Amino acid sequence: MRKGKFIGIGVGPGDPDLLTVKAVKALNKVDVICAPKSSKSKPSLALSIINSVLNDRGSKYETLEPLFPMIEDKEELQKYWNDAAHVIIEKLNDGLDVAFITLGDPAVYSTFSYVFKIIEGMDFETMIIPGITSFTGCAASAKIQLAEKDEIIVIVPKVDERLSQIMACGDTFVIMKTSRHSNQLENIINQDKRDKEIISVQNCSMKDEKIFNGFVIKDGLWVRTVVINQCWDSTV
Amino acid sequence: MRKGKFIGIGVGPGDPDLLTVKAVKALNKVDVICAPKSSKSKPSLALSIINSVLNDRGSKYETLEPLFPMIEDKEELQKYWNDAAHVIIEKLNDGLDVAFITLGDPAVYSTFSYVFKIIEGMDFETMIIPGITSFTGCAASAKIQLAEKDEIIVIVPKVDERLSQIMACGDTFVIMKTSRHSNQLENIINQDKRDKEIISVQNCSMKDEKIFNGFVIKDGLWVRTVVINQCWDSTV
Repeated sequence: MRKGKFIGIGVGPGDPDLLTVKAVKALNKVDVICAPKSSKSKPSLALSIINSVLNDRGSKYETLEPLFPMIEDKEELQKYWNDAAHVIIEKLNDGLDVAFITLGDPAVYSTFSYVFKIIEGMDFETMIIPGITSFTGCAASAKIQLAEKDEIIVIVPKVDERLSQIMACGDTFVIMKTSRHSNQLENIINQDKRDKEIISVQNCSMKDEKIFNGFVIKDGLWVRTVVINQCWDSTV
Repeated sequence: MRKGKFIGIGVGPGDPDLLTVKAVKALNKVDVICAPKSSKSKPSLALSIINSVLNDRGSKYETLEPLFPMIEDKEELQKYWNDAAHVIIEKLNDGLDVAFITLGDPAVYSTFSYVFKIIEGMDFETMIIPGITSFTGCAASAKIQLAEKDEIIVIVPKVDERLSQIMACGDTFVIMKTSRHSNQLENIINQDKRDKEIISVQNCSMKDEKIFNGFVIKDGLWVRTVVINQCWDSTV
């Protein structure tokens, strides 16, 4: 019996029109759509982005919404990933194609990677469809350049002492998930004596998108020798 | 009289299906498509990527192919950018919408930025549509992660002493445009004593795509604490 194909799909930062044509084609064909969510009470944002595509589908499909809670305990997390992989593997063994959707791009701080590692080693066909990352989405919304010529871009998912170390070596800094550390971030950036352009973006490409010059307390971000931009958390 | 709108569009790494839905919609509507090329004798790669979209268009459009040669002289380059901007501004003043297409994403090492800076300060409506970057395209093709959890991604457009400086501070290194410096790159990477995974990708997402483990002499690239990946030049 034919086994199903496992497809990782990046759905971009929020605007459904930022899906790629390849993603739309795949989402119109797969049998099962897997959209992880971080809380039982909150709907999956990635799923809401592809809603319009799914509404236009003629053929039936099934939706899986495994829970990937935002916890630190590695063993506990591994259990959730294993559970999700187990359900997906059952579908693949039944000959059903499964799409795993993820905000932004599947290769950039995505929970997809944990499940992919489990399934990758087994005998299933796999494919990954890249997505628009949160930081290029933010740059487009703010109409700024991330880098020109020989400039080095640094993407930092967490504000800590590693950021102050690397700050001297790069030109543009994309700082993600800054909500819990905005004072520390401001201190680190102020220690760098170069001229700076700081831009913060919230809810990139969505109806409630906001773009600020400077810092915003309580949210995401990025930077440039010249720049700091807030971008939203691209993890699921 | 209504003035035209200036739209920067990222067309992704090569596969026309990696265009976003938003890009396809814009390309179907604009009056003028501007596709810069680096040499008079070579056709524009960005233009070839959108060929299938343009072939499906019912309405007429005009194509501009300004020359942006790969030269170092800044004044000389500025002259080419000014000439291109001048032709675009004429079209915008005539009420025509102009799309400027660029490989990968318009915010990442794109020639679009130079022309955008000239036009931005004038009284035209502008919009930027992000594209799939070469490095997320390469990650998808190679089925690898660029970063997980707290890992720092560094994107380096040129191999020189700045790369050896920053090497100690990051986890994943995307090295672009390595063709002219592959020995130097290999030396810099070998000086870093961590375990590494090195992946090189050529002609990402295109028919002649090639993925290698390790280095490839004479072409693009990237890295991880754990990784080095060759990706193709995302500049026009």
